[in-house]
Amino acid sequence: MSPGAPAETDLPLRGLVGSVLGEADPSVYEVLPNLAEDVAAVEEQLKASLPASYPFLAEAATYATDSGGKRVRPLLMAATFRALGAQDTRLVQPLAAAFQLIHTATLVHDDVIDRADLRRGKPSVPRAFGVPAAIVAGDYLFVRAFQLAARYSTEIILRCGEACAELAQGEMMQENSRYDLTLGRDRYVRIMMMKTASIVAAGVASCGMVAKASKEIVDGLEEYGRAVGVAFQIQDDLLDIYGDPDITGKPLFSDWREGLPTLLTLDAYAALEGKERSQFERLFLTRRKRTADLMRLKDLTDRTDAHAKSMHDAEMCVKRALAAIEPIEPGPYRSLLERVARGVVTRRF
Amino acid sequence: MSPGAPAETDLPLRGLVGSVLGEADPSVYEVLPNLAEDVAAVEEQLKASLPASYPFLAEAATYATDSGGKRVRPLLMAATFRALGAQDTRLVQPLAAAFQLIHTATLVHDDVIDRADLRRGKPSVPRAFGVPAAIVAGDYLFVRAFQLAARYSTEIILRCGEACAELAQGEMMQENSRYDLTLGRDRYVRIMMMKTASIVAAGVASCGMVAKASKEIVDGLEEYGRAVGVAFQIQDDLLDIYGDPDITGKPLFSDWREGLPTLLTLDAYAALEGKERSQFERLFLTRRKRTADLMRLKDLTDRTDAHAKSMHDAEMCVKRALAAIEPIEPGPYRSLLERVARGVVTRRF
Repeated sequence: MSPGAPAETDLPLRGLVGSVLGEADPSVYEVLPNLAEDVAAVEEQLKASLPASYPFLAEAATYATDSGGKRVRPLLMAATFRALGAQDTRLVQPLAAAFQLIHTATLVHDDVIDRADLRRGKPSVPRAFGVPAAIVAGDYLFVRAFQLAARYSTEIILRCGEACAELAQGEMMQENSRYDLTLGRDRYVRIMMMKTASIVAAGVASCGMVAKASKEIVDGLEEYGRAVGVAFQIQDDLLDIYGDPDITGKPLFSDWREGLPTLLTLDAYAALEGKERSQFERLFLTRRKRTADLMRLKDLTDRTDAHAKSMHDAEMCVKRALAAIEPIEPGPYRSLLERVARGVVTRRF
Repeated sequence: MSPGAPAETDLPLRGLVGSVLGEADPSVYEVLPNLAEDVAAVEEQLKASLPASYPFLAEAATYATDSGGKRVRPLLMAATFRALGAQDTRLVQPLAAAFQLIHTATLVHDDVIDRADLRRGKPSVPRAFGVPAAIVAGDYLFVRAFQLAARYSTEIILRCGEACAELAQGEMMQENSRYDLTLGRDRYVRIMMMKTASIVAAGVASCGMVAKASKEIVDGLEEYGRAVGVAFQIQDDLLDIYGDPDITGKPLFSDWREGLPTLLTLDAYAALEGKERSQFERLFLTRRKRTADLMRLKDLTDRTDAHAKSMHDAEMCVKRALAAIEPIEPGPYRSLLERVARGVVTRRF
């Protein structure tokens, strides 16, 4: 551990630090304890919003939030708020908890739709509690999110809702794109924008609104969130093929198994020719792929520049994200936002 | 058609009038055109909240709301508001639309959970659009509901959310009660209270809040909504056994098929003895019931006073509902609320 890096005990942020902050500069480490406190406080809000008086739901919902990942969203929202010079992060904690609950709700329903058995190395909610409980627990998480959001301005609630609607629309577009190699890059980028990026953007932009930042800065945060969200998704897609399942906690090749085209897949298919192209198509369209099919798909992909193209696109997103928050005054919290933008494309989980 | 009864053209209320207002007194018919206008305006709000710019979702969500039933909720909410002397029902139309969307969302997710093929005589949303679309469309309907609720006071949004949470909890309790003949009346009544009645109660009570009614009246409306909700559910359970599928639009015996105990089932089981009791138990617990099994269950039920007991309970609910709105000044809109309370237990669909 480098000097100034946070002690093991500082954490809820361990996973996050490991994944996206590994090489952060010392000023970022200096403010991490504040953010760790913020994230821990959001965690308390999450727990309090799932009271034991709703026993059947509390169990599945708490299980889902516990498997809910790296807490990048609450960290980004707290850092945004502090980067704008605001001190009292209690003002955005319920909002951050709301966004985390929305994120968790969509993961639970996604796992029902994708029949996913594992989420972060643990049985998924539908696997652990059954499909009916997963559907209802997802609804319950949405409801609790909106209750947390209820104390904010109508403008913020509507923006939060619009991001959820975009997310749902993105999910439907993705659902309709299964086994479609003619989807095209633009439409895939639009899916990522709606499904992944809109909610990240709404989270940081609404923190800007709570902090009463200028329109220029709120718009910049929106752009930052969108760019980071897309970069995050591109890296997620790459980890699905090139990641280490022991580190990601997810089995490899789930997108190919489920027939979901990604940038990588679309670019590989576009670059291949002749027999290789038709083999790629045939294998991708196969409904029950054997391990050998998946390995061959990877092999064919690796004969193209698709991986490099995805990485290049992700890096372009990072640049856009960095430019978008330039209007914010420099400081350790802005540095952290920059560091997270860089980190999402180098993370291994 | 009796004189003073609304012309065919008046309707969105035709189904409702047929189902719960058939024998209403003339003063009720006089105010029906106003309520028909209210319900039509709520309908407009519903449509506007599902814009075509979300094409994949708009289609399934619109289909779901079109199959969303008799519009009892919007009617009750508008009538409540008017019964309190308030004139400008535009003030409660978005709220009524929100409650209707929440109701619709839960029906869509229920149909996924119950694998229901039909809803009001038409293919259910999961049947017509697939399970993934049904899950996401349900989420989308929830989101749009909360956006409509966003313009109301934090108190109302929280109350609306709490009713949704109760509803989810009730669904989980019901899910856990499948094939459980030891459930007991009290717990079943609690399930109905949470799953069906809480959202009706929140709807009318929040209209009282918008109309700035006294605490006594708001509490009375809450009680009215709970009693009407439970009566509605008891009648629903009876129609599942004794209804006419051509009129209800639903196949018979779905509760028995799905192993869901109702008051009727619990009372019949409690009243039977000896061999009949064990046969009832064995048949109810059978997972794939044949038609002969279902007919025999009905036969055994009819040897008991279970039907009469359910009807008696429903009538007690109606009495409670009527008493609860006595503090409201008498008038045609209060009469309509009374008429709806009476109508839910005599309706045939």
